Amino acid sequence: MDAYSLPKNDANFAELTPLTFIHRAALAYGNHASVVYENIKFTWKQTYERCLRLAAWLQSFGIRKNDVVSILAPNVPALYESHFGVPMAGAVLNTINTRLDAAAIAGILRHSGAKILFVDHQLLSLATDALSTLTSRPEVVLIDDISSTKRCASFGLQYEQVLASANPVAYPPVPVTNEWDAIALNYTSGTTSEPKGVVYSHRGAYLSTMTLLLQWGVGLQPVYLWSLPMFHCNGWTFTWGMAARGGTNVCLRSPSARNMYQAISRHGVTHMCGAPVLFNALLDPTECRQLTRPVHMLTGGAPPPAALLESIESVGFRITHAYGITEATGPALVCEWQQAWNRLPAAEKARLKARQGVGALTLADIDVKDKETMISVPRDGVTQGEICLRGSSIMKGYFKNKKDTDAAFKNGWFLTGDVGVMHPDGYIEIKDRSKDVIISGGENISSVEVEAALYRHPMVLEAAVVAMPHPHWGETPCAFIVLKEYASNEAGIEEGDIISYCRDKLSHYMVPRKVVFLEELPKTSTGKIQKFILRDVAKRMQKNNPKGDANYSRRVEREINDINRQPEARVEHVMALSRL
Amino acid sequence: MDAYSLPKNDANFAELTPLTFIHRAALAYGNHASVVYENIKFTWKQTYERCLRLAAWLQSFGIRKNDVVSILAPNVPALYESHFGVPMAGAVLNTINTRLDAAAIAGILRHSGAKILFVDHQLLSLATDALSTLTSRPEVVLIDDISSTKRCASFGLQYEQVLASANPVAYPPVPVTNEWDAIALNYTSGTTSEPKGVVYSHRGAYLSTMTLLLQWGVGLQPVYLWSLPMFHCNGWTFTWGMAARGGTNVCLRSPSARNMYQAISRHGVTHMCGAPVLFNALLDPTECRQLTRPVHMLTGGAPPPAALLESIESVGFRITHAYGITEATGPALVCEWQQAWNRLPAAEKARLKARQGVGALTLADIDVKDKETMISVPRDGVTQGEICLRGSSIMKGYFKNKKDTDAAFKNGWFLTGDVGVMHPDGYIEIKDRSKDVIISGGENISSVEVEAALYRHPMVLEAAVVAMPHPHWGETPCAFIVLKEYASNEAGIEEGDIISYCRDKLSHYMVPRKVVFLEELPKTSTGKIQKFILRDVAKRMQKNNPKGDANYSRRVEREINDINRQPEARVEHVMALSRL
Repeated sequence: MDAYSLPKNDANFAELTPLTFIHRAALAYGNHASVVYENIKFTWKQTYERCLRLAAWLQSFGIRKNDVVSILAPNVPALYESHFGVPMAGAVLNTINTRLDAAAIAGILRHSGAKILFVDHQLLSLATDALSTLTSRPEVVLIDDISSTKRCASFGLQYEQVLASANPVAYPPVPVTNEWDAIALNYTSGTTSEPKGVVYSHRGAYLSTMTLLLQWGVGLQPVYLWSLPMFHCNGWTFTWGMAARGGTNVCLRSPSARNMYQAISRHGVTHMCGAPVLFNALLDPTECRQLTRPVHMLTGGAPPPAALLESIESVGFRITHAYGITEATGPALVCEWQQAWNRLPAAEKARLKARQGVGALTLADIDVKDKETMISVPRDGVTQGEICLRGSSIMKGYFKNKKDTDAAFKNGWFLTGDVGVMHPDGYIEIKDRSKDVIISGGENISSVEVEAALYRHPMVLEAAVVAMPHPHWGETPCAFIVLKEYASNEAGIEEGDIISYCRDKLSHYMVPRKVVFLEELPKTSTGKIQKFILRDVAKRMQKNNPKGDANYSRRVEREINDINRQPEARVEHVMALSRL
Repeated sequence: MDAYSLPKNDANFAELTPLTFIHRAALAYGNHASVVYENIKFTWKQTYERCLRLAAWLQSFGIRKNDVVSILAPNVPALYESHFGVPMAGAVLNTINTRLDAAAIAGILRHSGAKILFVDHQLLSLATDALSTLTSRPEVVLIDDISSTKRCASFGLQYEQVLASANPVAYPPVPVTNEWDAIALNYTSGTTSEPKGVVYSHRGAYLSTMTLLLQWGVGLQPVYLWSLPMFHCNGWTFTWGMAARGGTNVCLRSPSARNMYQAISRHGVTHMCGAPVLFNALLDPTECRQLTRPVHMLTGGAPPPAALLESIESVGFRITHAYGITEATGPALVCEWQQAWNRLPAAEKARLKARQGVGALTLADIDVKDKETMISVPRDGVTQGEICLRGSSIMKGYFKNKKDTDAAFKNGWFLTGDVGVMHPDGYIEIKDRSKDVIISGGENISSVEVEAALYRHPMVLEAAVVAMPHPHWGETPCAFIVLKEYASNEAGIEEGDIISYCRDKLSHYMVPRKVVFLEELPKTSTGKIQKFILRDVAKRMQKNNPKGDANYSRRVEREINDINRQPEARVEHVMALSRL
């Protein structure tokens, strides 16, 4: 057969790109609602037209292939449109986390070399602060409030005006000539280290989008609520995915529990995503409402405790649990529900569902390996190893960062930095981030396992366990706990209660030696607990107070809580806490 | 960004191939039923092991990269396994239509240069006849009846024995090093011309599989009934697709209505495929049973008449209508159901569902164009043009056939050879195969439109309309009709009744001038009506009997019916009818 090679041509080989989806949506779902926001409703024909205009204006402004275009905005229509309009101009989309401080935003703009920055009107002063520290500044386009008739007339470039001025005939979309070209640049949230610029290819974005839609079972014309920030891994690819399925994007500037429940009932929401931290908000007794129709929720981030899964499902949410990392274009493992599990008791079901699952269909392979030897660990559900992935949805690499790029790949595998086990049924369960494992007397302790025990305590709302240095054991577990509101007032739970509760549930060496009660845990903007901060606190507590004097502990609690009460200071946690 | 190109590596770039799916299925769905046939039930772990063994044996036997391996079998486990085992050996799978005659099979074996031919034990004499005409013969492996303990001990190579003798450790699967490499070679059924060898790439097969699963909404662990022959476009890619979703393949040697209804109730079938001809079998009043649970059926081939769609849905089948051709790796247009249509009356729904629809997600674009100028026709639902497709699921080309390959592609589009219209809502409706359009007095008549009118007649079971030469008009419509069983006995329907019925429904120039009543229409093995045969009959009737003498017409009807009554002679229709 090789003698008749049948070469590729333009008819039988099309570069894979999510841009196909919106072109198709304009044709197939032209009059169906694409984006809903406050009093605004666009159709797919209109959204496509707006994206074409955005791409045209960018080109007319001088944006060229591979230029980076940044955007700093909550989940408003302009952010959605940028997912198509920016790559249609041949540029690379860089969505910036809106909860970063000015210094971090400046760092991203500097590192990415962004040519243009789109800024939501509410974030203009933050952006101005960031820009003031830069010597080479991107052009700024203000995203005015499309739902209001008031315009910020004083600003040079405004989003609606540049769209209106664009000429899509003179500047048609730049064709994707190589599916390996970059489509997006996403900086990691920095749970464990400095932010890194993760680069996605058009091919990876296309395949991830298709896979997630298939594995989550997203049917035709879903109504998707943007509870998850679009800046987070491009909304786990559902930005592009909604165009693929002709869905309706329900945009929310502020995803409070009240706003979410209102949107669910008003627009007939069928699907939404979010980290498990969202569950607590939705379960808040003053806001929680029983759903009249089930809402499918895809969750990722930290492994959700089984008890929490049970609660949220009882309200009417249908949870699919996935495991994702920015470097894998979002979800990489999906806890696919096997029919045989339907017969199991509820608690067992929840335990199975809390596992991270099997590889996304677009991955060529997944494994749990010894990080040094790269040999697979036994499929026994016990032996821990590094979770490794390979396939076309894995990032191209880290932007301008050869060292970290090289370190992320080994023997043809991407190293996730997460520690897990492979169960006999082929499902992977995360035991911990590599850096979160506590090593006590030579034994590995999974912080996740200790946290799971703590979550089963009826008074515990949230828990995070980290290593605290110990002169004899090397490290011991230190627990940071947020009690349920009424518990802290009425029940008078103390450190000893928690420790003795854990003694009943865990092997002795796994029981926390120290328990710190907080009003709130330090989290990234995407709701992940920032363990590196807690680890730092634990280390300093041990150093400054080796005997565990209760007064010192209480002072630490007070100080952390004081910091947490000032939301604008949240991102300065690291520095503030280092002073303890 | 181009200065930091971030090259591909083995971790972030995996060649796209459906072989990924079975590797994953063995891990993720290892103990779940993969293939069910008679008293045999395999798990995914077992099926994967058998495919590895098949690949190992093929390599040990001397099969090399790009060799063609043919298989002639009904829907038995070996045919399913060949879809993975053959490409795992680096070879190209050629599944042969089991209803072809020995000469046609010999032609395929000769043209493909197959090195090995797997033959089901019931088809051995047919294969032997075919092989006897070849000078260079492939090695033959007999597929013995796996559900029986009796073995055909006399035959040299037998499927179960070669699997047992294989050494998968010594011969592991050949890695796919280029996703553009061929995975399958499928000869067209020859509705309109000589069979051509359509070559699929691994990439095209992978993308088509993913797309079809997504667009048909195939959830996890479906139970799929093999009513559609796997030899037909690799079972519209669901051979590979069932591995992707951990589904159960219910194999049937003979898909009679009784067998299908039995399998549906015994195995809890959720999904099946078939041409609309299957509907008639399932609606046969002696076999038809109301389904207790809905079965999703994907249908393609000839456009199903709206009335037939309504009947089959009333039994409990949920029909999704797609349009496919071998050259597009199966379905290429899918009639996606828009929510707004739910409010419409049933007849209107059926009319919308009978359209071929929007492009499959994996296609980069679809259009209806003037074949000469390649300019898009207006989206008015009226102006006819050639249906054109482009995207990575389009075939690589025709094997050893540069002339037809070159003719199939034009200006970066694949020409389907089908004539259709683009409706204002972006949905394509087929009006005809290019060759089936009837041109009467300069007006184009869609044979499909005339057939739709005939199908609405309460006594008509099947209808096919072709061009009959006419000295004045050039061509006029000639209708071939199969009446419902009771109708032909009791109602005494005659040519004049049908013509006057059509006069009420159609423009005058579209009304058939001649009506021929048959007991059965000539069809390909996949149930498509062979219009080129009927066109030939119409031509000869006009030539031999220009005055339309009724006795001559009746003689033609008798002769065709006589031929139809001898199933073994079916494939000789062309020659037999030419003698009329």
